[in-house]
Amino acid sequence: MGATHRIEQTRIETEIAETMNPAVSGKTSNSNATAPLVRTLGIIGGGQLAKMTAIAAAQLGCRIVVLERSADCPAASVAAQTLVGDLNDLDALLRLAGMVEVVTLENEFVNPDVLARVEQAGHAVWPTASTMRLVQDKLIQKETLLQAGLPVPRFAPAPTLEAALAAAAQFGWPVVLKRRKLGYDGKGNATARSAAELESSWAYLDGLKNPLYVEEFCPFRTELAVIVTRSRTGEAVVYPVTETINRNHICNITKTPAPVPRDTAQKVVELAQRAADAINMVGSMGLELFWREDGTVLINEIAPRVHNTGHYTIEACECSQFENHVRAVLGWPLGSPAMRAPAAVMVNLLGHAEGIGTPFGLTQALSVPGAHVHIYGKTRTSPGRKMGHVTALGQTLDEALALAQRAANCIRFGQPE
Amino acid sequence: MGATHRIEQTRIETEIAETMNPAVSGKTSNSNATAPLVRTLGIIGGGQLAKMTAIAAAQLGCRIVVLERSADCPAASVAAQTLVGDLNDLDALLRLAGMVEVVTLENEFVNPDVLARVEQAGHAVWPTASTMRLVQDKLIQKETLLQAGLPVPRFAPAPTLEAALAAAAQFGWPVVLKRRKLGYDGKGNATARSAAELESSWAYLDGLKNPLYVEEFCPFRTELAVIVTRSRTGEAVVYPVTETINRNHICNITKTPAPVPRDTAQKVVELAQRAADAINMVGSMGLELFWREDGTVLINEIAPRVHNTGHYTIEACECSQFENHVRAVLGWPLGSPAMRAPAAVMVNLLGHAEGIGTPFGLTQALSVPGAHVHIYGKTRTSPGRKMGHVTALGQTLDEALALAQRAANCIRFGQPE
Repeated sequence: MGATHRIEQTRIETEIAETMNPAVSGKTSNSNATAPLVRTLGIIGGGQLAKMTAIAAAQLGCRIVVLERSADCPAASVAAQTLVGDLNDLDALLRLAGMVEVVTLENEFVNPDVLARVEQAGHAVWPTASTMRLVQDKLIQKETLLQAGLPVPRFAPAPTLEAALAAAAQFGWPVVLKRRKLGYDGKGNATARSAAELESSWAYLDGLKNPLYVEEFCPFRTELAVIVTRSRTGEAVVYPVTETINRNHICNITKTPAPVPRDTAQKVVELAQRAADAINMVGSMGLELFWREDGTVLINEIAPRVHNTGHYTIEACECSQFENHVRAVLGWPLGSPAMRAPAAVMVNLLGHAEGIGTPFGLTQALSVPGAHVHIYGKTRTSPGRKMGHVTALGQTLDEALALAQRAANCIRFGQPE
Repeated sequence: MGATHRIEQTRIETEIAETMNPAVSGKTSNSNATAPLVRTLGIIGGGQLAKMTAIAAAQLGCRIVVLERSADCPAASVAAQTLVGDLNDLDALLRLAGMVEVVTLENEFVNPDVLARVEQAGHAVWPTASTMRLVQDKLIQKETLLQAGLPVPRFAPAPTLEAALAAAAQFGWPVVLKRRKLGYDGKGNATARSAAELESSWAYLDGLKNPLYVEEFCPFRTELAVIVTRSRTGEAVVYPVTETINRNHICNITKTPAPVPRDTAQKVVELAQRAADAINMVGSMGLELFWREDGTVLINEIAPRVHNTGHYTIEACECSQFENHVRAVLGWPLGSPAMRAPAAVMVNLLGHAEGIGTPFGLTQALSVPGAHVHIYGKTRTSPGRKMGHVTALGQTLDEALALAQRAANCIRFGQPE
């Protein structure tokens, strides 16, 4: 008994000292905080995608540093450290890279040439500069997918208005004129139904200053999306196929699994895997696709990063797109993308008006049982800005949709009407 | 078409400016970061419980500040801000309280008199100083529960060895001698099977310096635990009942739902609610109970905070104990504690030896599909120290246990053997 007592007594003193009295404890030194075995991840960008990635990484004991232009970005609130700087500034990127083991990206707009310099300085960047180079310019993206034998809408470079008109003559009207770079959520695109409209679109998108390309217009039955995570060694896991319902070109609602035939879903999964291979992706990426009336599927575009259409995976899947992204870029084995409920619906919370970034009606939304409310913590809002989202699970898509929509309808960003 | 174009063009410029070019954007100012509508929460303590609470709060857009003695504590990595100071230092607590809307606690050891001073200065502290006063001293805790008509083991104050011996004569041997304050995980307790052992226990626990009390020894069939969250307005939600399997007095495995008859589970839920009422709890709290051979249930002890036996709720329940704690202390409606899978098992990851806090074998653990691995990010480990946990869900407890145990067995904290 004496022996037991002595052991317990030592434990009492050690543990209480550690909990209660810093003066007695030598254990809180941070001498090992930067030991090489502590996994560290740098994220270029500090928005909501970085925030959700940081949370997934923190749960795995990983230390996160983000680089963003503003110290009060969403990810800053959950990152171990935030660097303030421009995302294309080589010095800022090198500073970030010097603090972490692996650098990853929140958006596809970072200059691949600058990224390549970071790689040349000996830092690990996933996805790589060459992956970003294949994706960032949407004309090159389309060419890359086409060369890999993947189905994409017909497209042509449009260095001049004449080239655009020639392509339209070949594809038939309408056509879509698009900026090769920096377009997202439908911004940087214009649909033209005639030569006159194409001419005005050309002027509007400023084809002399901004490289453009032209695409055939693709009527579709449903827009689909899918998330694939690919590891550093080329293994991939593909999440269930999602139906996306856009409003004003912005993803508004996602329904998973998409109500499509099994062979369509299988086709999408195969395309996702092949697209990830084609760009040598490492990490989670999103594909947007058109499911057409004739049952075929075309890839509309790919984003080499975690994606809005995969937010539902936080609650609905065994391993979320965010955790799998962290696993992939750090070289850990990938987790299962299997769903833990029959149906999941996500509804985006978009800004209604200019104003502060705090939600009105959150209390009401939280009273909807089973609705998982995410507020990104942006300091300002504006019409259409992505401010948060709600996910609900259910036995059916209708059930999940009703719940998610009920909670989302309570919340308003910007001044109440 | 012209009108549409103009609107889209404005959107392009605004959005790209905001994303790409800080010089053009006036939106990244942090002038509204501290606007009164931004919800802020201060946590006294920065360990793993604070970390998981901070993550839940961040997802709801809430800003977290933690107070801890060391800047490299687990919660620091996910808090918006970390204050370094002693948890019982009034000035440090007032500094914390001045930065946030509500102050809450990660552990039950903070001095209630100091907390009361923070309240007197006009700050909201949940749970309150008076709740902490009813719980921190375990003799008072037992008296409070008894007065509320709740079943507890027989107990008596032991201000002297003679009082302890008199109580033992009344209860019968063995008895358990316990420190009234600062005991946890079996530390500060000693079981005595005879007057001689009680005398040596008395000396070992140093009854003259540390106030003690004595309890009857309770043989039990199973140890149970349950989490209850109670709101500022007195509503409560009770999570499913959990079986806890301890090793060396430290929670090692939890199984939910506990394999007990329905009426036993109902009884536990009722006790949890009444115990939360008895101490006027606000937030999530844990109860540990004995389920005895005769089918009755006794409350062993209560902890006025999120609890190790409720970690499974992160993956297994619609709203985790952490999110519900945040909701409760901020005055939001409580979420559903319903389980999203038939069975959940959590296995603690305890330190094996002295060493750095980084896990060995994490890669292997992450290759177990369906195992949710949490690493707390402590910089140092020691034998028995809580370093992380693994949760797995399943159709049955056996299935979940096998998965969680398989992943947990891969991980070792401290030097490998």
